[in-house]
Amino acid sequence: MQVGFIGFGEVASTLSQGLMENGVDVYTCIVGRGKRTNELAKKTKVKLYNSYKELAECSDILISSVIPSNAVNVAEMVGKYSNGIYVDMNNISPNTVRKTLAMIENGKTVDAAIIGSVLKNGINVKVIASGAFADTFAKLGNYGMNITVVGPENGQASGIKLLRSNYTKGVSALLFESIYHAYKLGIDKEVLNYISETEGQNFIDSAVSRIISTAFNAERRSEEMVEVIEMLSLKQNPVMSKATLKFFNNLNKNIKLNKRPVNYGEIFKIISED
Amino acid sequence: MQVGFIGFGEVASTLSQGLMENGVDVYTCIVGRGKRTNELAKKTKVKLYNSYKELAECSDILISSVIPSNAVNVAEMVGKYSNGIYVDMNNISPNTVRKTLAMIENGKTVDAAIIGSVLKNGINVKVIASGAFADTFAKLGNYGMNITVVGPENGQASGIKLLRSNYTKGVSALLFESIYHAYKLGIDKEVLNYISETEGQNFIDSAVSRIISTAFNAERRSEEMVEVIEMLSLKQNPVMSKATLKFFNNLNKNIKLNKRPVNYGEIFKIISED
Repeated sequence: MQVGFIGFGEVASTLSQGLMENGVDVYTCIVGRGKRTNELAKKTKVKLYNSYKELAECSDILISSVIPSNAVNVAEMVGKYSNGIYVDMNNISPNTVRKTLAMIENGKTVDAAIIGSVLKNGINVKVIASGAFADTFAKLGNYGMNITVVGPENGQASGIKLLRSNYTKGVSALLFESIYHAYKLGIDKEVLNYISETEGQNFIDSAVSRIISTAFNAERRSEEMVEVIEMLSLKQNPVMSKATLKFFNNLNKNIKLNKRPVNYGEIFKIISED
Repeated sequence: MQVGFIGFGEVASTLSQGLMENGVDVYTCIVGRGKRTNELAKKTKVKLYNSYKELAECSDILISSVIPSNAVNVAEMVGKYSNGIYVDMNNISPNTVRKTLAMIENGKTVDAAIIGSVLKNGINVKVIASGAFADTFAKLGNYGMNITVVGPENGQASGIKLLRSNYTKGVSALLFESIYHAYKLGIDKEVLNYISETEGQNFIDSAVSRIISTAFNAERRSEEMVEVIEMLSLKQNPVMSKATLKFFNNLNKNIKLNKRPVNYGEIFKIISED
């Protein structure tokens, strides 16, 4: 079994490591990629091809895990070379998924989406999949992955994922605005505490982590929100989603973080100085 | 011990009932009030004064529980008659609380806020209080209420409450937009299910209840969001809060419900027809 990854960030490297530990041959290609990708590939000890053409030709399962705005481009690049099953695992809208997977000439495609945190769950992170070849992709469950098939059509898995993302990203933005204000008044602990009365025991830890991730990943989240809005705009005027995008764009302009802060105070101090 | 309520909606009638069961004399005044207030007063068997002046003069503790936009007006109306302690229990911003309580000539004031659902918790609902006379107000804990003093200044309790409200109202709006879209695609159960993977066991019940309440109480929530935005705008441009207000205003234009729907499908069908 040979699995290839196009793109080698956090998701690809974490899944690769787990698959390799379970006996899968994992390949990627880092030609023309940045420093972080190179480091992750080296650290993970993934095998390398010198071209995306070769990677696509030799993979039984080829997984695309890139930034949302590149999803279509990479599918176009390897579309005629992909011999096995092509899995799009990017945070893109159902329409973009269909457009992306239409580039794969052999038609063996899967729409897949990660639910939850790869950082926290590693190879066990929940993956949902849909499309004609989702069942075949789900056999990676024998090699440590945790894949649930949610339907037979491309667009179903990504639809579920994006609607979930719309919620969780919006929650992060709401938390950020509320707790930032509370912090400035010196009542952030109290506000978190009283919200947790109705939101449950894990709320405070999860809220703090979301506020920190919000600032650390603002740019990536902006990209994902563009996809969410494209999707939701088909059925309504998604005012909350548009605000979430605006929030992440504003934040992205105001703060650049090279490493994940350990507490939200660091972040709020930087923003206050502007 | 004599407690008076200005305004006799859900909050006042629920608290009244509990206080009366614990031996407190409870009064209100329904002069010039609508049908629902009259019904609630009759059902609760609260005692009645024929004027707000009398109500204010005779109450040891006078609690204002009206719609946010009336908070200042009622305080102005009874400001010179209030002999006991005046408690503002409205969803208004710290600034509006201070303006409201400044109308009370004897200066015996309390800023109080309800955290959570009166419907669910009855007299046991958590109440936070701040201000110079919060400790005296908290003695109603001896008569069944559940009051925590959070500080000595007017504005502290309402600040905590409003920042919490900003979060919970925004969450409701986010849920509504996400699940409405999912419902139109026939994947609402799946989306709720996959969100609950990270949000915890109670998420689905709470989400369904929030979506229904959102539509049922859109008007009241719009009013509360005006107060939230007034508060947050002092320290930032609260894009999420502004979107939440816009969401509730839009919803309020599109749907009028006379009774609480039993499921969100009813609501989404009405909206889809527009």
